[in-house]
Amino acid sequence: MSLLGPLVAPVVRKEKKGKRKYDVIIVGAGVAGLTAAIYAARYKLDTIILTKDIGGTTATAGIIENYPGFIEIEGEALVNKFVQHVKYYDVDIYIEEVIDIQKKDDMVIVKTFSGEWETKAVILTLGAERVKLGVPGEKEFFGRGVSYCATCDAPLFKGKVVAVVGGGDTAVKEALHLVDYAEKVYLIHRRDQFRAEPIYVDRIKSNPKIELVLKHTIKELRGHNKLEEIILDDDTILKVDGLFVAIGIKPPKEFFQKIGIKTDDEGYVVVGPDQSTNIPGIFAAGDCTTASNKFRQIVTAAAEGAIAADSAFHYITKKFADRS
Amino acid sequence: MSLLGPLVAPVVRKEKKGKRKYDVIIVGAGVAGLTAAIYAARYKLDTIILTKDIGGTTATAGIIENYPGFIEIEGEALVNKFVQHVKYYDVDIYIEEVIDIQKKDDMVIVKTFSGEWETKAVILTLGAERVKLGVPGEKEFFGRGVSYCATCDAPLFKGKVVAVVGGGDTAVKEALHLVDYAEKVYLIHRRDQFRAEPIYVDRIKSNPKIELVLKHTIKELRGHNKLEEIILDDDTILKVDGLFVAIGIKPPKEFFQKIGIKTDDEGYVVVGPDQSTNIPGIFAAGDCTTASNKFRQIVTAAAEGAIAADSAFHYITKKFADRS
Repeated sequence: MSLLGPLVAPVVRKEKKGKRKYDVIIVGAGVAGLTAAIYAARYKLDTIILTKDIGGTTATAGIIENYPGFIEIEGEALVNKFVQHVKYYDVDIYIEEVIDIQKKDDMVIVKTFSGEWETKAVILTLGAERVKLGVPGEKEFFGRGVSYCATCDAPLFKGKVVAVVGGGDTAVKEALHLVDYAEKVYLIHRRDQFRAEPIYVDRIKSNPKIELVLKHTIKELRGHNKLEEIILDDDTILKVDGLFVAIGIKPPKEFFQKIGIKTDDEGYVVVGPDQSTNIPGIFAAGDCTTASNKFRQIVTAAAEGAIAADSAFHYITKKFADRS
Repeated sequence: MSLLGPLVAPVVRKEKKGKRKYDVIIVGAGVAGLTAAIYAARYKLDTIILTKDIGGTTATAGIIENYPGFIEIEGEALVNKFVQHVKYYDVDIYIEEVIDIQKKDDMVIVKTFSGEWETKAVILTLGAERVKLGVPGEKEFFGRGVSYCATCDAPLFKGKVVAVVGGGDTAVKEALHLVDYAEKVYLIHRRDQFRAEPIYVDRIKSNPKIELVLKHTIKELRGHNKLEEIILDDDTILKVDGLFVAIGIKPPKEFFQKIGIKTDDEGYVVVGPDQSTNIPGIFAAGDCTTASNKFRQIVTAAAEGAIAADSAFHYITKKFADRS
């Protein structure tokens, strides 16, 4: 993420060095975390962001066409705009990995490799990783045929041949979405049964534009500059323009379990309508949560970040007399 | 909203004239409705917007500083960007007031003064009106001292003297938010008891920057070019730079009741996490709903619009075989 260098470089300003106590610490700097920072700062909460990297999934998303207000913008450029918005309110972003979070009386202690930080509230925006196939060519052709979001990228494949790999609800829904654009959609699944809702499976099976490729896995992706061929486990070659990988999304479940945050079975933080978690003072927003009907979009993550900051403000105003 | 003229003018394109059947009809064209249109169109749903006006509350909001990605933008200019985004996907916007909505078997019939429209799904984004004081000067000084949103406008009153009028949770919370910016905050309430949560009332009472003005109403607002004086019912004059009106928000409860949509006591449409209402095929988003913890922001309304469109897509895909 080279473009973020100049933005990130000056974040640790000297006068604040050593300061370890804040109103709000936001963990993560995807669009949810960055929006939480904008709102928290506007509420005059003393706020910092601690994060491993900047921009989360958005930074690597390629062209974005569905963040309202921008007909078309590069993911990195949109992140840059969010970062500038945050920096306008003088919120520092520290590149530090958070390794533990624990309550201590009414405060929350956040640990990084550089030591401990104390805060009245935490907003967790750790995102969720798209599970990768882990085959040759996947990384090379990401953004050049390989995508992890049909809602985002389907319109780029008008009249083309695409494949979806996966057997769950997401894979099947993405295939049904893609047929509206693509000429042909292969649906590749390693088993012969789908885990998706039966009615979607019926729709898939009866759609003449969808060809099921069952009991097969993908061995390799090939092409020149962009994806051209999918090589299956039996060396069958599918000629395609695009591949949508829908084999799962993985929030950092182990980390949440370690710090005592309640998650659902898949590892998403269970949040209330105010983005609160089971631990008072700890809020969560974005892809790592159960919010927004799990519809993981830039605009929904941003909205959740705004709500989390508003809730943190009201929590702090109620709980801590020194803000009265 | 003159700037929208050229954008709105060509919406009724000849080849579509007379067409009265759609996949999705969006009622309302604030940021929730416009975002729903972007998402519905990207899902290849045949979509139109029927609306009385364009831009809703955002169009009249003055300077906006908290829609992530734009450090500062005029409300009208932001609406314009949303409208351009919608028009990029060729969704028509008809300036027609919807007067009735009824289910007819699996379809929904939407009535306007020009006749009936048939659709598989409806997304209601009717907004909510900020209740006005109805006193001389209020309209004149709107955006020039008079505001209906402290979360949005508090930072504009750094070091200034402001007043909040109202006695509920919103009024009290806004006062607590404003003290972080303003030098002094008058809280004007017609009764001597607040309806707000007691802990907030305690904070208000113990804050030296907040002066309670109880058992008083506002008679008039005066100034030159911008708000300067609040005239109370007993002719007391308060010298102020700003007035935040927090006496309520009013969704179109009667309309919702007429069409059988379930609301809460205040008249907000009760929606699930997928923005569905009690009537299958009818979704709702934005300020008129109970969503987003009732935190009414541009980014939350937009997110709800996106979720509603996604839910409408899945509803239609499941329900109507002709999309399989």
